[in-house]
Amino acid sequence: MTFASTWSDLSTVGRADDGGYRRFAWTREDHTLREWFAGEASARGLDLVTDRAGNQWAWWGDPDATPGVVTGSHLDSVPGGGAFDGPLGVVSGFLALDALRARGFVPTKPLGIANFVDEEGARFGVACAGSRLITGVLDADRARGLRDADGVTMAEALAAAGRDPRTLGRDDETLRRIGSFVELHVEQGRGLVHTGDAVGVGRMIWPHGRWRVELRGQANHAGTTPLADRRDPMLELAGLIGHVRSAAQDAGALATVGKLRVDPNGVNAIPSQVTAWLDVRAEDESAVRAVLAALRDYAPAEESWTPVTVLDADLADAVAGALDHPPRLGTGAGHDAGILAAAGIPTAMLFVRNPSGISHAPAEDADEADCLAGIDALTAVLARLLS
Amino acid sequence: MTFASTWSDLSTVGRADDGGYRRFAWTREDHTLREWFAGEASARGLDLVTDRAGNQWAWWGDPDATPGVVTGSHLDSVPGGGAFDGPLGVVSGFLALDALRARGFVPTKPLGIANFVDEEGARFGVACAGSRLITGVLDADRARGLRDADGVTMAEALAAAGRDPRTLGRDDETLRRIGSFVELHVEQGRGLVHTGDAVGVGRMIWPHGRWRVELRGQANHAGTTPLADRRDPMLELAGLIGHVRSAAQDAGALATVGKLRVDPNGVNAIPSQVTAWLDVRAEDESAVRAVLAALRDYAPAEESWTPVTVLDADLADAVAGALDHPPRLGTGAGHDAGILAAAGIPTAMLFVRNPSGISHAPAEDADEADCLAGIDALTAVLARLLS
Repeated sequence: MTFASTWSDLSTVGRADDGGYRRFAWTREDHTLREWFAGEASARGLDLVTDRAGNQWAWWGDPDATPGVVTGSHLDSVPGGGAFDGPLGVVSGFLALDALRARGFVPTKPLGIANFVDEEGARFGVACAGSRLITGVLDADRARGLRDADGVTMAEALAAAGRDPRTLGRDDETLRRIGSFVELHVEQGRGLVHTGDAVGVGRMIWPHGRWRVELRGQANHAGTTPLADRRDPMLELAGLIGHVRSAAQDAGALATVGKLRVDPNGVNAIPSQVTAWLDVRAEDESAVRAVLAALRDYAPAEESWTPVTVLDADLADAVAGALDHPPRLGTGAGHDAGILAAAGIPTAMLFVRNPSGISHAPAEDADEADCLAGIDALTAVLARLLS
Repeated sequence: MTFASTWSDLSTVGRADDGGYRRFAWTREDHTLREWFAGEASARGLDLVTDRAGNQWAWWGDPDATPGVVTGSHLDSVPGGGAFDGPLGVVSGFLALDALRARGFVPTKPLGIANFVDEEGARFGVACAGSRLITGVLDADRARGLRDADGVTMAEALAAAGRDPRTLGRDDETLRRIGSFVELHVEQGRGLVHTGDAVGVGRMIWPHGRWRVELRGQANHAGTTPLADRRDPMLELAGLIGHVRSAAQDAGALATVGKLRVDPNGVNAIPSQVTAWLDVRAEDESAVRAVLAALRDYAPAEESWTPVTVLDADLADAVAGALDHPPRLGTGAGHDAGILAAAGIPTAMLFVRNPSGISHAPAEDADEADCLAGIDALTAVLARLLS
């Protein structure tokens, strides 16, 4: 199977008219993607295992005999997301395995390909839910109670997708099988454009977190309430947005207000409440903390926090050694690789060049030649780690 | 039937835990309210007529013999609305009719009680849709194509509610029956608190309109896109909110950003677009136009516009003559009474005191004594107009 044909199998799933993808966990689109993954595993004679969180693993060899080398990524998306964030790593895993077999390579360890569920957290608000669950970082009871925008809990969504929500929880049997993990991912920035490389190696993942700010006012009729009598939280929102940007600039961090909820959200109603979500990241945790300190008057409530993840130096050296002097990159984006690394699993990342640097949007892109270079690099890395 | 018992019949329909009401046109809640209206008409032996737009009319006497005197209001609500805006006028109509009959009053003309559909426009975005349709101000084809937040058209909603959407259109037969119209409504402000009266008489309805502003950016990953490379429409939104407030202050108008849509509305995504809706009103149209002129850089697109409505002076004098020197009030809120007045029907309004002035919110309130005073006033007014 070629890259182009495998890629085109995925290209229509959850795709909107504007080219953006909507592939939320445990939806019909996710089900189609999981079926595709199972089919790819089956076509290659791999053993398909689904863990306690619903992550899928396709194994070449028996990981219960010897811990394996695992690659892969995720198939879900943000709302209006791009085609590459996630799927490129899964597709590259299958095609690297094909390349190893085509050259008659005999691995000394099992090779696994993973599809992590709900990496973006677009539906229930917690990113990397699948890897956080099996490593025990995300409590199973809390996960089951998370609600999507329609009020559906994760437990209800799992049940509707035919899974038993009681199985959620730390999964040591699965973790024991992962000797090391290499995630290939489209770059979400222009680092490789600047260095002129098709492929780079991950160095660290920035510390990052999400906070919620609740701005309360007094709902009232927009047509009859004098300006002086209003408590309009929309005005506070305007101040918050400006403060977030200036705090990020002052601290040398990235900070974003990307999500809002307005209650009741009526044209002729002064809102009773505006809720804003903040995403804050920086290379240094101190810069993130400086942004939050500058916003303390808004009482931001932490929804998630991931400390800096320094990827395994030995594994990164081994990965780099299989390639031709690849650049080493940090990234502000969170990944399942970071969750596994924090759980003590030696973990590495490969990045594929993104011409525009745009991600989480329909314009997210990678040249086919660079994708093929990424698969070649992953093949070389896996060959070294499996020898 | 007493005010308290009639009121309590309605109090649970579409009520959320926080006390706010959600009673959108052609929903299950609306169906329950329409059934209640039909029941009240039937219990009094009134003839129930539903017009081409779905507005309900309960007649005492034959309006095809002689045009009648009509009172009433609407039963739908904004999202998170209060209990009084609309229902108080409908309930007061039935109870005023009861009071006339109890004293053996014999009318010389028919008396009608109206329930206008979709007054708030909360579902399809056009306020006073029911009265605009029968007066021909809202084109039937345009109305059928309006979509709610879930993409359901008004035509589909009508069909789902068991009505034939082809019947929508100007309804001269219905308009001919309305010799005059008196709408009783809770005040949406504190004018009567300041004058110390339980009831006042309407003088005029301010000119008002709705505009849509589309702020476009470039969707991108919040964790990887440098601040300097962003085109983040959320920053433009912050500027817009501030400009709207300062333009309103400068012009002596009311202007509100009460509704937003963020695309894709993901915590870790720089938005591709933010859409904001403006509500602008003032006693003078020139003040509204000054606000819009100050915002011209944002290219606001008009969604609706209602010029000033000066209520019928003779009818207002007759209404005032039935009462004891009531104060005369202008209002920034639109009403079906304004649509009928613009169509040439002599129209008057009665307002009942609202202690907080709050409306379109759960805190909207009126003392029972003031509601009873409103019913007494409406009874006196109807007695005069029907003599």
